[in-house]
Amino acid sequence: MDELAAIVGEAHVLAGEAIPEDYGHDESLDLAPVRPAYVVKPSSAAEVADVLKLATATRTPVTARGSGSGLSGAAIPRAEGIVVSFERMDAIVEIDTANHVAVVQPGVTLAALDEATAAVGLAYQVHPGELSGSLGGNVNTNAGGMSAVRYGVTRHHVLGVEAVLPTGEIVRSGGKVVKVSTGYDLTQLITGSEGTLALVTEATLKLSPRLTQATTVLAPFATLDEVTRAVPQVVASGIGPSILEYIDMLTMAAITYNADLSLGIPDSVRDSSQAYLVVSLENRSSERLEEDVEALGSHLLELGAVDIYVLPGPAARKLIEAREKAFWTAKAANAHCIIDTVVPRASIAEFLARARSVAEEHGSYVLGCGHAGDGNVHLALFQPDAEARYRTLKALFSAGMAVGGSISGEHGIGQEKKKYFLELEDPAKIALMRRIKAAFDPNGILNPDVLFAEGDA
Amino acid sequence: MDELAAIVGEAHVLAGEAIPEDYGHDESLDLAPVRPAYVVKPSSAAEVADVLKLATATRTPVTARGSGSGLSGAAIPRAEGIVVSFERMDAIVEIDTANHVAVVQPGVTLAALDEATAAVGLAYQVHPGELSGSLGGNVNTNAGGMSAVRYGVTRHHVLGVEAVLPTGEIVRSGGKVVKVSTGYDLTQLITGSEGTLALVTEATLKLSPRLTQATTVLAPFATLDEVTRAVPQVVASGIGPSILEYIDMLTMAAITYNADLSLGIPDSVRDSSQAYLVVSLENRSSERLEEDVEALGSHLLELGAVDIYVLPGPAARKLIEAREKAFWTAKAANAHCIIDTVVPRASIAEFLARARSVAEEHGSYVLGCGHAGDGNVHLALFQPDAEARYRTLKALFSAGMAVGGSISGEHGIGQEKKKYFLELEDPAKIALMRRIKAAFDPNGILNPDVLFAEGDA
Repeated sequence: MDELAAIVGEAHVLAGEAIPEDYGHDESLDLAPVRPAYVVKPSSAAEVADVLKLATATRTPVTARGSGSGLSGAAIPRAEGIVVSFERMDAIVEIDTANHVAVVQPGVTLAALDEATAAVGLAYQVHPGELSGSLGGNVNTNAGGMSAVRYGVTRHHVLGVEAVLPTGEIVRSGGKVVKVSTGYDLTQLITGSEGTLALVTEATLKLSPRLTQATTVLAPFATLDEVTRAVPQVVASGIGPSILEYIDMLTMAAITYNADLSLGIPDSVRDSSQAYLVVSLENRSSERLEEDVEALGSHLLELGAVDIYVLPGPAARKLIEAREKAFWTAKAANAHCIIDTVVPRASIAEFLARARSVAEEHGSYVLGCGHAGDGNVHLALFQPDAEARYRTLKALFSAGMAVGGSISGEHGIGQEKKKYFLELEDPAKIALMRRIKAAFDPNGILNPDVLFAEGDA
Repeated sequence: MDELAAIVGEAHVLAGEAIPEDYGHDESLDLAPVRPAYVVKPSSAAEVADVLKLATATRTPVTARGSGSGLSGAAIPRAEGIVVSFERMDAIVEIDTANHVAVVQPGVTLAALDEATAAVGLAYQVHPGELSGSLGGNVNTNAGGMSAVRYGVTRHHVLGVEAVLPTGEIVRSGGKVVKVSTGYDLTQLITGSEGTLALVTEATLKLSPRLTQATTVLAPFATLDEVTRAVPQVVASGIGPSILEYIDMLTMAAITYNADLSLGIPDSVRDSSQAYLVVSLENRSSERLEEDVEALGSHLLELGAVDIYVLPGPAARKLIEAREKAFWTAKAANAHCIIDTVVPRASIAEFLARARSVAEEHGSYVLGCGHAGDGNVHLALFQPDAEARYRTLKALFSAGMAVGGSISGEHGIGQEKKKYFLELEDPAKIALMRRIKAAFDPNGILNPDVLFAEGDA
């Protein structure tokens, strides 16, 4: 305690009972909170380095924390461990309009960055839905979201990082450059590493011109299969949607009910539609946007849409927001787990069919929505029994991997999915990842319970 | 020899004097060829694994070879070593039109992939200029090229790899999915690792719809400074050029002369123009393309262009090809070295001014062209004296790093630039990269002379 206070100042260390419950959990549904021994709130990379040197010397586990909006338990600490909370490192260091980059500290929220970039006509085009999410957390989970179909995920926007190694060295990788072939890409290796390799103390992020013209089209389909079969066609058309989401009937009912949102769809259409495709288009020019919307509409009707609704601005925004909050709707409905399996875009239909029969076999229930353009399926799983839940999840992940997919598309493995990761992935790959972990963190102090089994990192 | 023959078949092993000179070098200008002890030509990942197991058992250095078009000496073997040539593994395994991906073996050339994708209206949007280049080589150097300003570099197109670890395990990472957050991103770590971590035996690559409407605009400017200052403005306009190159006067003279290309620029304009901007636009629609070309032209004139030339198709193709062959022009002019330093886009002017004075200080001469939209500067260096060349290069790279850039944007470090890499980069980063190397290659058999100093890997 005294040593930590000497580094960050007495006012910025919490210990024992003084630690609010929030520091012990993130938003994962399936894991119990753990109160850490200490919470420290550093104000600089140098302070982070000193905290990590102390933790290395005392072999104390360290867990980094942004805003705690993660969904896989990567921010849940050890009881004897230290939480490094980045809430004081929340400065937007620079918005560089000539190079189209933002330089941010890890505690900056998506909301704050959005405001700062909007002021200069630029945008950070990663929209994981939770605007209170911190950029540090986003970089560490390689967060995705609805715009990934057009702009890619967090990984594709991280041009550089400053990061502190667990042994205390501060390294910089990449920067305001859009390409580098100078040694191994540490930026990409640290991105998505869930706080297990290094603590990111600054990130350089790619920005894009903010497009002001946008329209959202809602297309009901008779079956979920038809929706998912239409997706590769829409992508192949080259129309370049900025959002391409599917929502199943029950999820649509729940999110519109929760958001008190009326979409103006006649009862007859609603009753005969089991799933919806939501497509947003953006453009610099309103004429081009109108042309594209028209072309998209015709194309969707050819692909079997029951009808096409071009949503007025406020309704579109409300639907997108409601869709972003689907997680909270699922949580409110007492879902036991949320998965974000990613499969090849053209295999969504096959995977969803398999998922339904897997759920049935195990007496579980799944419903959901997802980033259709990315093949990223979000399923809320309802299964109160832990053992049956485990069997259902393992079968679901296996089904995803069997069609060429992966356990997580954007939420990460964290603590919540690590048993599936360790059981289902190739042992040669796991062993290699463990050796990479050791190359960064020889004493295994960074998030020792994340990705790898306890004590094995 | 017998053991290697037992793995790949007698017809596919060469030894000693029977090895053609070509297997001893790539296209780097500054390094002498080295004849390896053996060349093996495996036909499968399993054969590659057996070769690597044998090499590990005998501690024999192994160098992977695609088409030998690299520019940094990453394909130059050790005299006692084995070259694994991927010339027989040249199958396009699949062009998946639903998921927009190609699955290729490492020996597939860019030309072959371009032909196969064109047939189905798709394109692999990485254009490093040398169409005989192999995809395996491209993945290993993270090759860039002229389209990177719009589509990104090789790294942004590699969705997955099958790779053989030096100890013989065959691992798969990623696949036909556009995003993954399942453990460390081995795909991105292996991409750009220059044959030092694992041998790539298959790559899954992202394809895009092939846009058929394209126009190229040539804009002469009075000074190189004006050209490079215009670049961030063109990018910021949101017009999304697919090519945004600068060419200095002498380079333009040399490449047009070599290509026997007349651009129809009046003498008066040519005499008063020290540099050129080449901008290509692409679109699905010819009307939109025309509108964009008009807007671009006005914008360039506002930015100080002396005039605007919309090049007819054949002239545009010839200019782009001539620009792609700038390396060969520099080689024919007896350049001693080619660099590809990358800097923040808005710092190109500053870097080029510094580069000119650095060259002058050391009695060297530089001229060039580059991927202006990426901040990626290609300079041909003329300096016959090795010691003065070393001092010039070190000062050039330092100047690039001082404005936030990096030694190589797309050619890699290889053997040619490793002394600068090791001298100029942060020792903590080099040490970390060495530990990552050891995590993959504990015996240091893969390309031991690349990136790291001999014997130190």
